[in-house]
Amino acid sequence: MATHALPARPDPLLADLARCRDLTVALVAPLSDADATVQSMPDASPAKWHLAHTTWFLETFVLRDHVPGYTAFDPSFAYLFNSYYEAEGARHSRTARGLITRPSLDRILAWRAHVDAAIADAAPLLGSDARTLIELGIHHEQQHQELLQTDILHLFAQNPTAPAIWDHPRDTPAAIPGPIEWMPGRTGIVQLGHGGGSFAFDCEGPRHDVLLHPHALADRTVTNAEWAHFIADGGYDRPDHWLSDGWTWVKAEAIEAPLYWQRAGDGWASFALDGLHPIRPAAPVTHISHYEADAYARWAGARLPTEPEWESAAAGHDPAGGNQLDTAGPVRPRAAPAGTGLRALFGDVWEWTGSAYLPYPGFRTAPGAVGEYNGKFMSGQSVLKGGSCATPRGHVRASYRNFFYPHQRWQFTGLRLARDL
Amino acid sequence: MATHALPARPDPLLADLARCRDLTVALVAPLSDADATVQSMPDASPAKWHLAHTTWFLETFVLRDHVPGYTAFDPSFAYLFNSYYEAEGARHSRTARGLITRPSLDRILAWRAHVDAAIADAAPLLGSDARTLIELGIHHEQQHQELLQTDILHLFAQNPTAPAIWDHPRDTPAAIPGPIEWMPGRTGIVQLGHGGGSFAFDCEGPRHDVLLHPHALADRTVTNAEWAHFIADGGYDRPDHWLSDGWTWVKAEAIEAPLYWQRAGDGWASFALDGLHPIRPAAPVTHISHYEADAYARWAGARLPTEPEWESAAAGHDPAGGNQLDTAGPVRPRAAPAGTGLRALFGDVWEWTGSAYLPYPGFRTAPGAVGEYNGKFMSGQSVLKGGSCATPRGHVRASYRNFFYPHQRWQFTGLRLARDL
Amino acid sequence: MATHALPARPDPLLADLARCRDLTVALVAPLSDADATVQSMPDASPAKWHLAHTTWFLETFVLRDHVPGYTAFDPSFAYLFNSYYEAEGARHSRTARGLITRPSLDRILAWRAHVDAAIADAAPLLGSDARTLIELGIHHEQQHQELLQTDILHLFAQNPTAPAIWDHPRDTPAAIPGPIEWMPGRTGIVQLGHGGGSFAFDCEGPRHDVLLHPHALADRTVTNAEWAHFIADGGYDRPDHWLSDGWTWVKAEAIEAPLYWQRAGDGWASFALDGLHPIRPAAPVTHISHYEADAYARWAGARLPTEPEWESAAAGHDPAGGNQLDTAGPVRPRAAPAGTGLRALFGDVWEWTGSAYLPYPGFRTAPGAVGEYNGKFMSGQSVLKGGSCATPRGHVRASYRNFFYPHQRWQFTGLRLARDL
Amino acid sequence: MATHALPARPDPLLADLARCRDLTVALVAPLSDADATVQSMPDASPAKWHLAHTTWFLETFVLRDHVPGYTAFDPSFAYLFNSYYEAEGARHSRTARGLITRPSLDRILAWRAHVDAAIADAAPLLGSDARTLIELGIHHEQQHQELLQTDILHLFAQNPTAPAIWDHPRDTPAAIPGPIEWMPGRTGIVQLGHGGGSFAFDCEGPRHDVLLHPHALADRTVTNAEWAHFIADGGYDRPDHWLSDGWTWVKAEAIEAPLYWQRAGDGWASFALDGLHPIRPAAPVTHISHYEADAYARWAGARLPTEPEWESAAAGHDPAGGNQLDTAGPVRPRAAPAGTGLRALFGDVWEWTGSAYLPYPGFRTAPGAVGEYNGKFMSGQSVLKGGSCATPRGHVRASYRNFFYPHQRWQFTGLRLARDL
Repeated sequence: MATHALPARPDPLLADLARCRDLTVALVAPLSDADATVQSMPDASPAKWHLAHTTWFLETFVLRDHVPGYTAFDPSFAYLFNSYYEAEGARHSRTARGLITRPSLDRILAWRAHVDAAIADAAPLLGSDARTLIELGIHHEQQHQELLQTDILHLFAQNPTAPAIWDHPRDTPAAIPGPIEWMPGRTGIVQLGHGGGSFAFDCEGPRHDVLLHPHALADRTVTNAEWAHFIADGGYDRPDHWLSDGWTWVKAEAIEAPLYWQRAGDGWASFALDGLHPIRPAAPVTHISHYEADAYARWAGARLPTEPEWESAAAGHDPAGGNQLDTAGPVRPRAAPAGTGLRALFGDVWEWTGSAYLPYPGFRTAPGAVGEYNGKFMSGQSVLKGGSCATPRGHVRASYRNFFYPHQRWQFTGLRLARDL
Repeated sequence: MATHALPARPDPLLADLARCRDLTVALVAPLSDADATVQSMPDASPAKWHLAHTTWFLETFVLRDHVPGYTAFDPSFAYLFNSYYEAEGARHSRTARGLITRPSLDRILAWRAHVDAAIADAAPLLGSDARTLIELGIHHEQQHQELLQTDILHLFAQNPTAPAIWDHPRDTPAAIPGPIEWMPGRTGIVQLGHGGGSFAFDCEGPRHDVLLHPHALADRTVTNAEWAHFIADGGYDRPDHWLSDGWTWVKAEAIEAPLYWQRAGDGWASFALDGLHPIRPAAPVTHISHYEADAYARWAGARLPTEPEWESAAAGHDPAGGNQLDTAGPVRPRAAPAGTGLRALFGDVWEWTGSAYLPYPGFRTAPGAVGEYNGKFMSGQSVLKGGSCATPRGHVRASYRNFFYPHQRWQFTGLRLARDL
Repeated sequence: MATHALPARPDPLLADLARCRDLTVALVAPLSDADATVQSMPDASPAKWHLAHTTWFLETFVLRDHVPGYTAFDPSFAYLFNSYYEAEGARHSRTARGLITRPSLDRILAWRAHVDAAIADAAPLLGSDARTLIELGIHHEQQHQELLQTDILHLFAQNPTAPAIWDHPRDTPAAIPGPIEWMPGRTGIVQLGHGGGSFAFDCEGPRHDVLLHPHALADRTVTNAEWAHFIADGGYDRPDHWLSDGWTWVKAEAIEAPLYWQRAGDGWASFALDGLHPIRPAAPVTHISHYEADAYARWAGARLPTEPEWESAAAGHDPAGGNQLDTAGPVRPRAAPAGTGLRALFGDVWEWTGSAYLPYPGFRTAPGAVGEYNGKFMSGQSVLKGGSCATPRGHVRASYRNFFYPHQRWQFTGLRLARDL
Repeated sequence: MATHALPARPDPLLADLARCRDLTVALVAPLSDADATVQSMPDASPAKWHLAHTTWFLETFVLRDHVPGYTAFDPSFAYLFNSYYEAEGARHSRTARGLITRPSLDRILAWRAHVDAAIADAAPLLGSDARTLIELGIHHEQQHQELLQTDILHLFAQNPTAPAIWDHPRDTPAAIPGPIEWMPGRTGIVQLGHGGGSFAFDCEGPRHDVLLHPHALADRTVTNAEWAHFIADGGYDRPDHWLSDGWTWVKAEAIEAPLYWQRAGDGWASFALDGLHPIRPAAPVTHISHYEADAYARWAGARLPTEPEWESAAAGHDPAGGNQLDTAGPVRPRAAPAGTGLRALFGDVWEWTGSAYLPYPGFRTAPGAVGEYNGKFMSGQSVLKGGSCATPRGHVRASYRNFFYPHQRWQFTGLRLARDL
């Protein structure tokens, strides 16, 4: 066993894991025990739950299953912090996650440290199966890093005192971008989906041929200024812009602007984790539902891109570029960079597509608990592409498929227009 | 214009309209005023409402808009019997349709006769726009003929006395079909969607190229006997067969069998408009949701067909063949005919596909109230193909796109398995 | 059997029963099968259900239990038309009463005739137990006569065309009554409750001593004109007038006027079974909840009477006087007769009291199914006294205790003010 | 004003206030910030909210209204921590109290200290109006001390790990009490209600004559052992024991035992703030609804006492005796003391009466915000008497009227039987 004592051979997977785990903890650094405990709606989870659940994942699928003799830090945690893995047995009701005031945030952080240490200790002995699960655990935790930020944002937005947990950066106002330019996309058969060779979630493959019809994409996403114009033009008042389900939602929920927008004088302000500030006109609109995105596109005489249109356009772009999450701090979409051509495909806002989240040809669910990961959600949800300002850099790919129900909008969601040619 | 007076040239469009209108009335012949008035759930409408709404469609879009001087039979009916056309103004709440005991069934039938006569009178003077609307009115009414039957069935199924409104036909029991044979489908680029030349709804086009991947379809639909085996094997008890939304639905609604099934001795009986009778093992299972269809397919190691797979397979089949509605009477799916190859694609049961109901490339909503017809429902619903035993013969086509939410199952819905090759 | 053929000895109980049963049928004479079938809210029952349930009561407790060899007209009816008698076994869900389109209205009327004839045939042989049950059946049916009218009214009020089933009587407008006069009530110990000697429901007794404190009652009930003044003065907008539960109800239900009131020009109109007409200013306000009655009283610097205050005041008044139901036709509260002293205690509108519906000292529930009659409802409801324009004359007494939940207002409910002296 | 500076004259009101305020803080000593923040159901409030609201009461009605120049500690707190005083303006939604993670528990405790100091400073200058409000503030805070304990208990009961915040006391098992003895009560006219001379809430008066009918009360409350027998005898399964609303509640909520009971082996355990332990057979049953209390009484052939019966019986008993709250720590009802005669009227469990919470003759709501205190809740609630193990000693009186809706049971609620003589 002497080999693993050699200091000269750091394990890059372990280094990635450590960086990921540290970032998670940094994201919750400004939170109190109470901040980390409360659940603000059934769709969201407490920060403490995210911290715990990602730890449970590693403790269960890596340590329990691959490290002989490992004993669970606390046997009650499996029940409390399993999310939806039916194969892993009974679990605490999702809507009651916010009632678990104990264990405390400190104890969960101690658990995290314990599991991290146990994995570091065990790492030299782990086989490729376990290492694959660690890699999956990193990507799984990155997903929860994004949810952590949006769930915290949702919680603080319920507080009438609008508390900010990060300093508000002073940035030079960005220039309002010019009118949209239409960028023709590829036509004919293209290969899409993940082809292997690096990590991807099961739902991103198999790689397969797709037939594209003549179309163009907007060179940039829709801005806050454009959205304010949509509102001023009665966008939320005219049923002919809306999907039938969308109109029902607008009326039932009294929707009249994106989530976190509120009227401020003649204009609009929006709330983020650095406080309530006037909307920045040049920045991409965010926190809109699929229904809103679709209504805007109809109002604008356009449509949403399909997933294949978006993905083929993104093929030559650097998925690690753009406004994505590097360190803990305030995140907001930023104005598209000046220039021409397709910009800001990655980062800033998840872009709603017109495609349903459905399996690719030849898709098979993996067996066992880990196999519950994605396939069982392939019903009623829409695909979003490209990542956001809250997505950890390195997490997203052109083939990455995010998915939400069409009414959901607490993620950093926006839109890019498309049209037929 | 004297030529129009020539009696020797019957108008085939008018003849089609008359046949259609007469069939609708025949379908409600066994109903009392009360039977025709009650609404048994928000998804369903009273029979009287169907009779009235189809008449409102003709009176509004043909007589009001194209016959100078026509006066509405009763001006209150536009409010009562508009369905969802926002452009046509305020309308009675969908969920309160069953509270309208007046006008009576007789008065609605009188209105129907009045409108039919007015159209017949006006017909010789109508231009092609109006004639196009009459054709649309026929197809629209055929859709309501099917809903009329399934809504009546749903209503009578709520009555603990299980009343039958049609005589139960005595048929020779069909032979249980043998195991499924897998029929390979076409691969590569095929043209699908409606290409014009005859009537189709807007959502069926434009005709466009689709890329098919290697796959096979089952030669027949799943039978009641096979479904009973699925139940006996714990199909409704194991979450791993189910989509996440489907499993939530099964638990919340305590689902344990298709709609209208009830235990009878050691087996199952099902209710239809000819009463409560033992399930016929050889006949296709029906009244299942998309969730159930999907769960069965997973249990069977298969999947649902995509819409393009189904549609390309159906291209050479006669859409007017099979077990469809010809005259008013009891309808039930029947065992697939003996033989080989793809059978019973049309008629018997609508077949759930794995495809979401979304627009085809180049799809544009038609302007005006009629344009609300299909496009605004393109969210959250799944496509069904092929028509059922309750679909008026002549109504359905290979390109026909029916759509329902994945939990709905009061239509004659079934499934055919597919798999990748 | 020869004795009961003697024509010279009419049985007064049977004559009462026949009158009662005939009045019920007269009340539904203007109804279609559909009108009689639909249930407009969970609190209301279909007219057909009332017709059937009152018949079920007689068939079950008189014919089944006291006439050897009697066979039920239709054995399925016991399940369909039992109301809430747990001891009588399973029954059709209350909220699904409106889904029973069959048996038809005609068949229920035939059942009524059959049961009436069977009781008439059996009458000479019935003992006192059975005769007591017939008497109970009459009073039970009278209660349903009132519900029948208010439930029909509720149903027709949902119809946007506001259909009238009775002709609107042309009456001379009544003079607006002068200001309220306060009538001091009795003080000290009084005997209240029913003391036997004639029919009463179990909850009206035992007769018992009650201690009255110094108080006065208004000489008449509150009028529509006074209520319109309450509205104009912001009565529905100021929480300090309202019970906490009442204010929650006002906000949740967006209440701004009595049930069936709608704005008409500068004033108000109200709907009744003779159509939609301007409110009559001199008539008592009706269709108000306990919450509204209480709020009005606070606004007026007064309070609601207690049940003992009301009952002791009514002791010398003729319970068969006033505006009560004699024959089928349109019913509306009428202006109090001119004069002085307490007027219109009986008839016109049920008067909300400030008393909860609770048992009297020594109250015991009767054993068996009939014993479920009243005692089990003694929770959360308020007492109303005096009968209304829809109460069959002869049904009500000073000791009569009607009860509804404080938010309910589809009965003919009004109020009389009281105050401490 | 120099006299006020004399140290030799401590102000007993200030001393009472200090003791009360200190006890509140002691009750939350074992709580974390998260424990103090979460709201476990709409009926309950977070501990932090109780700490803040009681402070808001003093800051608003004493310091703001009576201390010139006082500035609110934090102006946002008035919005956050007003409870239901409509007259005090807009306030945070009751159901969203648990979403306020900031201000933190520490900051609320600092606010408490600040307000306490400000009152102590101002005390010498306060007039009798302000002193009356301080006295009201003490009694108000004592009410919240009880709610604080029951709300914390409800929260911890939701945690699957059943955390205990207090040590479990080791007590000698109490002897099972013998059968109930019936104690005849007073008959005829008695004076009840609070007559002045010391503090009481407005709803306890005016003192007034009440007429009592012959009756007897059980010498002690119903025990856990007796309740277990009720369960074993099918108490929760037979509708004839239950009020109609109660039976609906039992079925809808799947009630089968008191709140916090769970099956443990052959018997029952119950959860309290010292953990989950076997029920103590001799101790009074608690955490039962009015519906359950009423059902038990019917099953036992008895009834609940009326409020006057209970109050007249309690007249000669020491309201400061019995098992009530003295210091922070675990509270549980204890077995009735050995002996004869009425025992444990005060303390242990609030005793449900059969009386509705309604105003006494001559009751008038006080004007202004403080006047909203009790009167507006006089609808739909039942009276409870006697205080509980969680009631601060000194808070309760014979005339004290506690009230809850009949389905509520998270307070320490129990019952004593009564019967007519």
